[in-house]
Amino acid sequence: MTVRVGVIGAGIMGADHVNTLHRSVSDAVVTMVADVDIERAKRTAQPVRGAIATADGFALIADGAVDAVVIASHDSTHAALVLAAIEAGKPVLCEKPLAPTVAECLSIVRAEAGGPAGKPLISLGFMRRFDPGYTDMKQALADGSIGNPLLVHCVSRGVSSAPNASNESSVTGSAIHEFDVLPWLLGSPIVEVSWYSGRPSGLVDGFTDPHLILLRTADGVLSTLEVFLNARYGYDVRCEIVGEQGTLALREPARTATDLSRGRTVGYPADWRPRFADAYRLELQAWINLLESGDSGQWTELATAHDGLVAGAVAEAVIESMHDGGRTVQVSVPTLS
Amino acid sequence: MTVRVGVIGAGIMGADHVNTLHRSVSDAVVTMVADVDIERAKRTAQPVRGAIATADGFALIADGAVDAVVIASHDSTHAALVLAAIEAGKPVLCEKPLAPTVAECLSIVRAEAGGPAGKPLISLGFMRRFDPGYTDMKQALADGSIGNPLLVHCVSRGVSSAPNASNESSVTGSAIHEFDVLPWLLGSPIVEVSWYSGRPSGLVDGFTDPHLILLRTADGVLSTLEVFLNARYGYDVRCEIVGEQGTLALREPARTATDLSRGRTVGYPADWRPRFADAYRLELQAWINLLESGDSGQWTELATAHDGLVAGAVAEAVIESMHDGGRTVQVSVPTLS
Amino acid sequence: MTVRVGVIGAGIMGADHVNTLHRSVSDAVVTMVADVDIERAKRTAQPVRGAIATADGFALIADGAVDAVVIASHDSTHAALVLAAIEAGKPVLCEKPLAPTVAECLSIVRAEAGGPAGKPLISLGFMRRFDPGYTDMKQALADGSIGNPLLVHCVSRGVSSAPNASNESSVTGSAIHEFDVLPWLLGSPIVEVSWYSGRPSGLVDGFTDPHLILLRTADGVLSTLEVFLNARYGYDVRCEIVGEQGTLALREPARTATDLSRGRTVGYPADWRPRFADAYRLELQAWINLLESGDSGQWTELATAHDGLVAGAVAEAVIESMHDGGRTVQVSVPTLS
Amino acid sequence: MTVRVGVIGAGIMGADHVNTLHRSVSDAVVTMVADVDIERAKRTAQPVRGAIATADGFALIADGAVDAVVIASHDSTHAALVLAAIEAGKPVLCEKPLAPTVAECLSIVRAEAGGPAGKPLISLGFMRRFDPGYTDMKQALADGSIGNPLLVHCVSRGVSSAPNASNESSVTGSAIHEFDVLPWLLGSPIVEVSWYSGRPSGLVDGFTDPHLILLRTADGVLSTLEVFLNARYGYDVRCEIVGEQGTLALREPARTATDLSRGRTVGYPADWRPRFADAYRLELQAWINLLESGDSGQWTELATAHDGLVAGAVAEAVIESMHDGGRTVQVSVPTLS
Repeated sequence: MTVRVGVIGAGIMGADHVNTLHRSVSDAVVTMVADVDIERAKRTAQPVRGAIATADGFALIADGAVDAVVIASHDSTHAALVLAAIEAGKPVLCEKPLAPTVAECLSIVRAEAGGPAGKPLISLGFMRRFDPGYTDMKQALADGSIGNPLLVHCVSRGVSSAPNASNESSVTGSAIHEFDVLPWLLGSPIVEVSWYSGRPSGLVDGFTDPHLILLRTADGVLSTLEVFLNARYGYDVRCEIVGEQGTLALREPARTATDLSRGRTVGYPADWRPRFADAYRLELQAWINLLESGDSGQWTELATAHDGLVAGAVAEAVIESMHDGGRTVQVSVPTLS
Repeated sequence: MTVRVGVIGAGIMGADHVNTLHRSVSDAVVTMVADVDIERAKRTAQPVRGAIATADGFALIADGAVDAVVIASHDSTHAALVLAAIEAGKPVLCEKPLAPTVAECLSIVRAEAGGPAGKPLISLGFMRRFDPGYTDMKQALADGSIGNPLLVHCVSRGVSSAPNASNESSVTGSAIHEFDVLPWLLGSPIVEVSWYSGRPSGLVDGFTDPHLILLRTADGVLSTLEVFLNARYGYDVRCEIVGEQGTLALREPARTATDLSRGRTVGYPADWRPRFADAYRLELQAWINLLESGDSGQWTELATAHDGLVAGAVAEAVIESMHDGGRTVQVSVPTLS
Repeated sequence: MTVRVGVIGAGIMGADHVNTLHRSVSDAVVTMVADVDIERAKRTAQPVRGAIATADGFALIADGAVDAVVIASHDSTHAALVLAAIEAGKPVLCEKPLAPTVAECLSIVRAEAGGPAGKPLISLGFMRRFDPGYTDMKQALADGSIGNPLLVHCVSRGVSSAPNASNESSVTGSAIHEFDVLPWLLGSPIVEVSWYSGRPSGLVDGFTDPHLILLRTADGVLSTLEVFLNARYGYDVRCEIVGEQGTLALREPARTATDLSRGRTVGYPADWRPRFADAYRLELQAWINLLESGDSGQWTELATAHDGLVAGAVAEAVIESMHDGGRTVQVSVPTLS
Repeated sequence: MTVRVGVIGAGIMGADHVNTLHRSVSDAVVTMVADVDIERAKRTAQPVRGAIATADGFALIADGAVDAVVIASHDSTHAALVLAAIEAGKPVLCEKPLAPTVAECLSIVRAEAGGPAGKPLISLGFMRRFDPGYTDMKQALADGSIGNPLLVHCVSRGVSSAPNASNESSVTGSAIHEFDVLPWLLGSPIVEVSWYSGRPSGLVDGFTDPHLILLRTADGVLSTLEVFLNARYGYDVRCEIVGEQGTLALREPARTATDLSRGRTVGYPADWRPRFADAYRLELQAWINLLESGDSGQWTELATAHDGLVAGAVAEAVIESMHDGGRTVQVSVPTLS
């Protein structure tokens, strides 16, 4: 039983999803691609035999040729598209963030709970839960050899920021991955945060880069998170969990090393695509498998709409700390009822 | 257009192929599984909705529900099954070796050339051509930064050998991967070989382990190859290409590192499955893509029957050296006509 | 011209200094060893031909056979011994801390300035300034390839804490090394600090372990410092400087790697001795060279009494933060006049 | 008791020895420096207070201010100088090779045995025996965790060869280090060798570079040795011992890593000085300690004249193989009587 997928958004992320679904995911077929730039939608759909392009994401959601929807359009469009999919009773894999504000996230979670499908429809694209490095660490943590986790050190570095990057978007667009993956790793929610500026890079205009964020989970574990959008040297995501008896850490995922010019070098990618290609592929496959099983209640690593709400609440707390001199801020997740 | 695949052999390798085709390859569906042990065939087919089990590989080849055949049964069965598939005009992905002897390989290559399909049908399972480490090295070599290759150092280590391992099977079953991948990397055939014994491990009965093989390609590059089936500590495949300006080398592919008990440790797998999971997946996907395209003549990295013949000829030369005191032996590849 | 050195304290640290001066430092000879446990002093002095043991450190300082003094006795004894050496006009290399409180440090700095020698006599044992890893990083930073430093991440882990360890002694005894080496690396003093507890290890009684300390230098660089005295797995000191264009980091200094039991392992030492053996040797040699040159005013990397005062002031600020709920505290270094 | 050392040869190696003895070795003082270029001798002696320069190495040996002699002059001068030192009854540390031919080595060994001192006087500069990496491996091998050694893989790469390098000098000047250190590691002499050319680098004129040498020790262990004098990228010495249960290997000794320009890089030195600085220092210290002890018969890791003879015999066998098409050649060490 092949799942017919419509992809909304044909930018870098959406095009990558179309390509992955088409070439590397079992039992999925891309039937529609939507983008406000119809030419871009056409170019992205072109390699997929039979796929139709449209400029209208809502038309895609409504189309009979679409069983399930991937949302990878601009962040500002997510909420309305997700609500439309809930209304249509179609399952969605929505790129993070679920919505720009906690209030909007909450309205989506409520809509899903009260929607016509009567069951969860929304998965959120926190793909690190499928990265083999993170899943190996989670398994090793469960195996117990390092004992209870006590501290976590995270680093999230990119080559250069998008044109309109701001202190706030660094939190909501980048740090948010750790706001999801840390509780997932530790099995404990983030309850308290604070924000610090590093010395601002003189190569960056318009905002403060890098940042340091401290996160406390309910189990008492303290996590440090460096976010540096303009680290220049490469795309580099690190995570080390310090336990009572030892530590677990991600390694650079390069497959080869080069000896040249007085050095042994292991490469970094220029962006997230090579680093998380496996994670995106495995996430999409897990989502298709879930849809095929017809049992949306089954256990899965896929993030839910509520996970998106929680990550959004952490982001709001961090931004509150940022705007208030680094004050320690408690995370407040609104309840549904 | 989904390709309906029959898999012959439900041992570790065959079961792995069924699982990969079913769960991780786009546009493929497993419709039949054959094994002389029918219960094993049933167990392997069971997770795939609609897949039928049979004890008869030839029946599978003939079955109308099978468009293409994967052969992963015992080495001794490969030749006859491949010939049957040629006769049936069905494409085959055959695990190495193509056949136990050069003479049999030659007869298959001839049968394919003169078969009813009038086009190549056979791909051979030299999956390292799809391993991201090897493909990165081949690309980097082509980029030219290390200059011309001069030497290659290869290591092929496993945890423990199969029950009936011998000096000869170490060559035909393990070293043969390098006999294919080195010419593929260098773009030059192996022309001269010699064989040496290491000091035999006292933990191994019945044959001499480890071996050292020297291989000279037509371009003058000298390769060393250690084959150690009983290295005990882990499954470990290494390759370093030494060029005029620098070197390229595979890294250990582990995703994480652990600090524990006075050491920082990066893990090795117990066998080839985790190490080459990506390579097998990408090889199967490339094969399915090739079949879908309907253009068997298109460029692809997939090894051909003739590649299997060539690797078999190198293996015979190495075994001749082994039986003749390590004498340098020229490789002789029989011509088709 | 050989410098005749008296060593006060024959514990692990003092015995190590005697051994290093005797076996590995040019132009130095150990002539006396003092320890309140006279038998321990004798055992330590015994391998050195002609070295005399005494129970009285002050007698050692006064002895005509001693040109210069190393102080490696209990922390509580440092101040009185250093003052006696100043009075005697003899140069001192004192292990950190210079004194337990900032007030005592200040009195020593003042005594040195007004002492009979009329010139600096005190060097402080902040040996990391001589560690080849740190000196390589400082040189690379000056070379400018990574641009301005923006963040620093430090980790200081040991196997198990001393019997009377406390939250405060973790700061004054361990973290103090970073309080000195960070300003030395960055060329900028620490001006602001805050203290956080990690989740306390369940394997540690009597105090909270690990800690996380944030340090801001006057240049705006933010440093994170994890101090974990009971990390169990090994003695492990890390430092990564994040700059505008790239990073610099210490590597594990092990000379060999071992493949065994499904892993490739690089070893950690059980304590600081192997890790900083080079640093202590080079520090002692630099000190002897300084004394030989007869020019105490010359440029050197050796820490001064004032450096010890400054590090002590940072430690006091961190402890103030610890006692006040992690509040950000400004560092106040008393002025001499 | 300080040992007064005269150093013959003020080239790169001799100057390095003078500097090390002067600055970093306990109980040694350099009193004379000899070089045929008297200005070079003066420049090298100048930083050492009281050291005298001479153009005549034999005068240095005879001088009453010299207790012991380091020979680091041109290879062709070693034999005559060593014989003069034997005649004078003065201990010598001679850089490898002891002499250019086995016959000359033999005459030196005989002269030492029959010399006036009536005891061994000659140590040979095979400094790798003091490198912390090699000594760690030897200790780990003795500890038994990897079981019996079976294979060894060695790599010896430099940046560029000396002006008059030849296929033969690559063996006698570079590979000879492994001819000594492998038997020392394994506790078994080399008995059989063969020589192979790699594909010759197009960047090298006048001789064939790189080489591959196979060495069989009496215990049956097979060693591979790549020697590549013009590897361009850096000075890189590797050694991996493959045992029945695991392996031991040297690591790159760099103290830091740099993230920059899409890569994480660990540096290689441009020549042997940084790589083996510790080894030379520890070797010189061990030699001084031996002389101080007055007991030349005591156990030590220092290589003897006989070790130099044995390494020379291996080199001759390798060159015989080189000149005879890579034929396997038995090593023949002449007996003294």
